[in-house]
Amino acid sequence: MDQTPITAAIVGATGYVGAELTRLLLAHPRVSLEHVTSRSRVGTRVDALYPHLEGRCGLVYGDETPAQLARRVDALFLALPHGASIEAVASLFEDGAPIGRARVIDMSGDFRLEDPALYEEHYGVEHLFGELLGRFVYGLSEWNAEAIAAAQHVANPGCFATAIGLALAPLAAAGLLPDRVTAFAATGSTGSGASASKGTHHPERATNYKLYKVLRHQHVPEIETMLASLGAETRLSMVPASAPMTHGIFATLHLPCDDPETLARVVEVAYADAPFVRVRRSTPQLNWVVGSNFADIGLFCGDGELVVASALDNTLKGAAGQAVQNLNLMFGFEPTRGLGAVASLP
Amino acid sequence: MDQTPITAAIVGATGYVGAELTRLLLAHPRVSLEHVTSRSRVGTRVDALYPHLEGRCGLVYGDETPAQLARRVDALFLALPHGASIEAVASLFEDGAPIGRARVIDMSGDFRLEDPALYEEHYGVEHLFGELLGRFVYGLSEWNAEAIAAAQHVANPGCFATAIGLALAPLAAAGLLPDRVTAFAATGSTGSGASASKGTHHPERATNYKLYKVLRHQHVPEIETMLASLGAETRLSMVPASAPMTHGIFATLHLPCDDPETLARVVEVAYADAPFVRVRRSTPQLNWVVGSNFADIGLFCGDGELVVASALDNTLKGAAGQAVQNLNLMFGFEPTRGLGAVASLP
Amino acid sequence: MDQTPITAAIVGATGYVGAELTRLLLAHPRVSLEHVTSRSRVGTRVDALYPHLEGRCGLVYGDETPAQLARRVDALFLALPHGASIEAVASLFEDGAPIGRARVIDMSGDFRLEDPALYEEHYGVEHLFGELLGRFVYGLSEWNAEAIAAAQHVANPGCFATAIGLALAPLAAAGLLPDRVTAFAATGSTGSGASASKGTHHPERATNYKLYKVLRHQHVPEIETMLASLGAETRLSMVPASAPMTHGIFATLHLPCDDPETLARVVEVAYADAPFVRVRRSTPQLNWVVGSNFADIGLFCGDGELVVASALDNTLKGAAGQAVQNLNLMFGFEPTRGLGAVASLP
Amino acid sequence: MDQTPITAAIVGATGYVGAELTRLLLAHPRVSLEHVTSRSRVGTRVDALYPHLEGRCGLVYGDETPAQLARRVDALFLALPHGASIEAVASLFEDGAPIGRARVIDMSGDFRLEDPALYEEHYGVEHLFGELLGRFVYGLSEWNAEAIAAAQHVANPGCFATAIGLALAPLAAAGLLPDRVTAFAATGSTGSGASASKGTHHPERATNYKLYKVLRHQHVPEIETMLASLGAETRLSMVPASAPMTHGIFATLHLPCDDPETLARVVEVAYADAPFVRVRRSTPQLNWVVGSNFADIGLFCGDGELVVASALDNTLKGAAGQAVQNLNLMFGFEPTRGLGAVASLP
Repeated sequence: MDQTPITAAIVGATGYVGAELTRLLLAHPRVSLEHVTSRSRVGTRVDALYPHLEGRCGLVYGDETPAQLARRVDALFLALPHGASIEAVASLFEDGAPIGRARVIDMSGDFRLEDPALYEEHYGVEHLFGELLGRFVYGLSEWNAEAIAAAQHVANPGCFATAIGLALAPLAAAGLLPDRVTAFAATGSTGSGASASKGTHHPERATNYKLYKVLRHQHVPEIETMLASLGAETRLSMVPASAPMTHGIFATLHLPCDDPETLARVVEVAYADAPFVRVRRSTPQLNWVVGSNFADIGLFCGDGELVVASALDNTLKGAAGQAVQNLNLMFGFEPTRGLGAVASLP
Repeated sequence: MDQTPITAAIVGATGYVGAELTRLLLAHPRVSLEHVTSRSRVGTRVDALYPHLEGRCGLVYGDETPAQLARRVDALFLALPHGASIEAVASLFEDGAPIGRARVIDMSGDFRLEDPALYEEHYGVEHLFGELLGRFVYGLSEWNAEAIAAAQHVANPGCFATAIGLALAPLAAAGLLPDRVTAFAATGSTGSGASASKGTHHPERATNYKLYKVLRHQHVPEIETMLASLGAETRLSMVPASAPMTHGIFATLHLPCDDPETLARVVEVAYADAPFVRVRRSTPQLNWVVGSNFADIGLFCGDGELVVASALDNTLKGAAGQAVQNLNLMFGFEPTRGLGAVASLP
Repeated sequence: MDQTPITAAIVGATGYVGAELTRLLLAHPRVSLEHVTSRSRVGTRVDALYPHLEGRCGLVYGDETPAQLARRVDALFLALPHGASIEAVASLFEDGAPIGRARVIDMSGDFRLEDPALYEEHYGVEHLFGELLGRFVYGLSEWNAEAIAAAQHVANPGCFATAIGLALAPLAAAGLLPDRVTAFAATGSTGSGASASKGTHHPERATNYKLYKVLRHQHVPEIETMLASLGAETRLSMVPASAPMTHGIFATLHLPCDDPETLARVVEVAYADAPFVRVRRSTPQLNWVVGSNFADIGLFCGDGELVVASALDNTLKGAAGQAVQNLNLMFGFEPTRGLGAVASLP
Repeated sequence: MDQTPITAAIVGATGYVGAELTRLLLAHPRVSLEHVTSRSRVGTRVDALYPHLEGRCGLVYGDETPAQLARRVDALFLALPHGASIEAVASLFEDGAPIGRARVIDMSGDFRLEDPALYEEHYGVEHLFGELLGRFVYGLSEWNAEAIAAAQHVANPGCFATAIGLALAPLAAAGLLPDRVTAFAATGSTGSGASASKGTHHPERATNYKLYKVLRHQHVPEIETMLASLGAETRLSMVPASAPMTHGIFATLHLPCDDPETLARVVEVAYADAPFVRVRRSTPQLNWVVGSNFADIGLFCGDGELVVASALDNTLKGAAGQAVQNLNLMFGFEPTRGLGAVASLP
């Protein structure tokens, strides 16, 4: 068995998603992380900005362009803010053809939708390269494994979209999804990224609970698009909440249905062999998934209703972990390679 | 104006609800707190168990019975665990007539329902004195003010029941409540009381999020009974969650409806003059209510749906604060007497 | 007894100290808060910025100058950042004489030291009006009560300085302070103020613990100056820490000494009648003081050593609460007026 | 190179230390964890008690005795409460000779001291097998590597003892340790173990800060004994604090000394090549070590004084991680085998 590692690079590596990718790729036995770039920190050592990596990382943030890196490495991760990935991706094409050999995983929301108009409505930015949307495979690992394995360009799902999408996809595929689903989803503060702001100012977040983007979160069209691709026309009413954790998404879904037990079994069966999705008939807990790539799903059958809870670590299964899971698919590595960590408990 | 204070006593004063009642009544300008009792701490000074009260409280936990106290004081608070209040209340009657002059506020769930069978189903305990249920007025201050003012016996509402009940009552009264409402409600750890247990063990609670009593919380029949008394037949699907705060209830309700704007206005109008309910078209935040007797409601109109968020401090508006609000009603004091505190921010 | 309230104003009222002063003065039975100003928020309602005050505050941030306010109100609070108070205070004098009738309480560090050179060394700013330093009385309420009562200008102490100063002042006054004292002091995040920054970014603060300004915190000269005024020449080695609370200072002092019991008794006696300082032979706890104006001191006698712990709420006894305590002294109100709050527990 | 794994067992595996050992050994490439035992949970699956391990662990808690296991496995970990290890260890000897082949790592405090009288004084329990104390090598990995490598019995250090011991050992070995050292050390709540108690009840711990065992923590003689073994007679004044984190020890030491720079350099040099100790001239942060086996040390030179900060994860470098580090030494594995994890950040 050839164990020569592939080479990888991360563009925009100073944010939280980039930092988690850095940490995971440094420890991945089949990957050699060669380049990390940052507009604002060129020349800074990674472990000066992220001292938890001291002794494990000798890299320095560079200013290589995505196009340069696409020619040098096997796997290219774009960890740029929403909006900024559009041009970065565009720079990876010349006359409609991809530059270089790199297979690309984009962490932003810029290439997750199929319809540029929907993107513009929800992200408030014009999508100047809408024609490239079709190049991307949506990287919900458990549902698109074959396409991901074959793809050169993968759009890595959003954190809420992963939590909610994993819970609903089996029902969509089985034609059992109700017309309307209500989702309440609490997120930890790392979801807001590495930049300090009033909403994540410790004094105002540490003991607080509040809603935001009620009924208008940008992951709604992402989820609805994914469900539609499985044949389901469902309307999702989503209420996101900022909760006082640092890590984790905890989504609770309410589904009116005649036969909740049948739906529950479909979800159980769907993930019976999935290495990173654990299904129970009891509540998941954030403590059981944070620090790992697991998504834990809990099922509760009521009288004419099904409650589904879905919990994951937003920086791992909800971002960098799923990206590595996709990398493993794309390069034929074992599914759990580099993703063996289980959180210290509690 | 006669400013002679009334006298008060708390039975079962060592729990968190009892401690908050102690704190509030000590500072209430129209109340003289004369007795606090506890089975387990007889002879202990209050400020030995609760040193934050040192310098403000010279009381000692005694072992007076409820019946003894009912003859001695004007206002008697029962802060006993669910189940334990049944006998305590029964001891306050002789040949079907109340003993003593005390007006009684029961903090437990034992006398909030009208139907003993419903109590037994949800509390798992036989209600040996079901005939006394009819003696109690349900103490949701904003909706039962007149009856509370006239009552000798008040059943103080539960914390979730207050948060959700305040949000839904105006719609029930207006005949605008949909047939089904979904409620997701996160609670802080003080809601579990003063006894240490695995579920509130700091290492396992501080960064965690989990569900409990999904679709079977005992406050559901309490809320449905209250709504029915206002004329609404609504089924409530309630999913409670343990969130990593110490204080606060944050309930988010989803109501399918044709005309959300009309419903929203009904809620706004209902509380236009309420001293402790603040209604906004934006999210409430726990930080804005914790430490105070406020309940803050946020309204979000969607397309065929209304989202209502309701936030309060579970130990205040959700328990001891509302009890004092009821006391003010019962004794004709100004509504905000003893309840002027606003939380230190943030 | 004349109960006509005095009038008050707060300059720079949008920060956390200003917000706490606003909250306390609104509830003070002898004060009418007439003006709150802010450079950045002129025209904004106070309760738009601080919604926890909605229903209790109709004020709007104005742009009155300190000099204008000094002529209009009885008590003027300056809640400006360090450095910004210098000019504000200077504007309150004309030809060396105070303008207006207002008695002034400055919340910043700008007028706490006697020596401008020491100020410049520790604050890194030139003190352009060093001659005004002598006008100010240092407002450590328990130790300067007489001078404060008579003062027109009071420099309100810093939060660490209050916690450590209260612990050491009795020993300084008794001539029992050792030559060197070591202090480790943990602070909550509100101490960093209302502006978001990396150090108080929730993801990086919520589970963290770190030191800052080791051996060079600007409160050291403030404390040493205060102790010197009581006759003690002591060197303080202070190590501040950022701990993951929002509120509270917890200082632990180590004093080598021959007779720790004697020192402990001196501290006990010093505060026997103090309404806001509670001394015990056991540990204080932040939970017992946060939300109140109490400072709790714990004494531990060892073999040739005394450990003193001192805990308070940095925004109350460490800032706004002590300022109101000083106001009460200056205007002859009862010491606990407007400061009766005890924290909700736990 | 022979990669056949060694076999291992954990006695008392249901506590937090046992759970962390379970997690680490399951992932260790050179170890096969064969048995986990528990008095209270015989027959329970590990992942029923610790669902974060679901999918990674098929073990069931058994009731094998330490003596049985000593004959079956290569490495035996005793993760019993203090006091309970004494008999367990005694059962591993027959006529003064060890039973079985297993090399033993004891996680408790029962075999860390050399002097049974000192044990009894600090643990309040008679040491019935004091003659066995001499069999144990003290497992401070960085300082006893050779002896640990050769030992059959290792006493794994305490969490505070590791944090403080690592900071002071280089100075002790160099003969530069002052006569007296003051240590303030904050701990997270996992240090109190898996059993719920009032001191770790979430409502009373989550926003609190308090001292405990002031000047009388049982790790003091452990540290002093270790330092004495390096030739230093030093008295340690230690003040432990309960801080509102779940994980981490943050110790801050104050050392009076004439030449702090020399001392600082000695510490830097001592760990220049240590894979798990990182020394800086700035503050460590808990966030940088929690979840990893790193101990981070920060050095601050003052005028006649040195401040040393030492931070580690109490369940890893302070317990289970160091135990695996010792296992690696004892079996000749690479030092970082099974200990590669770096915390997700922040």
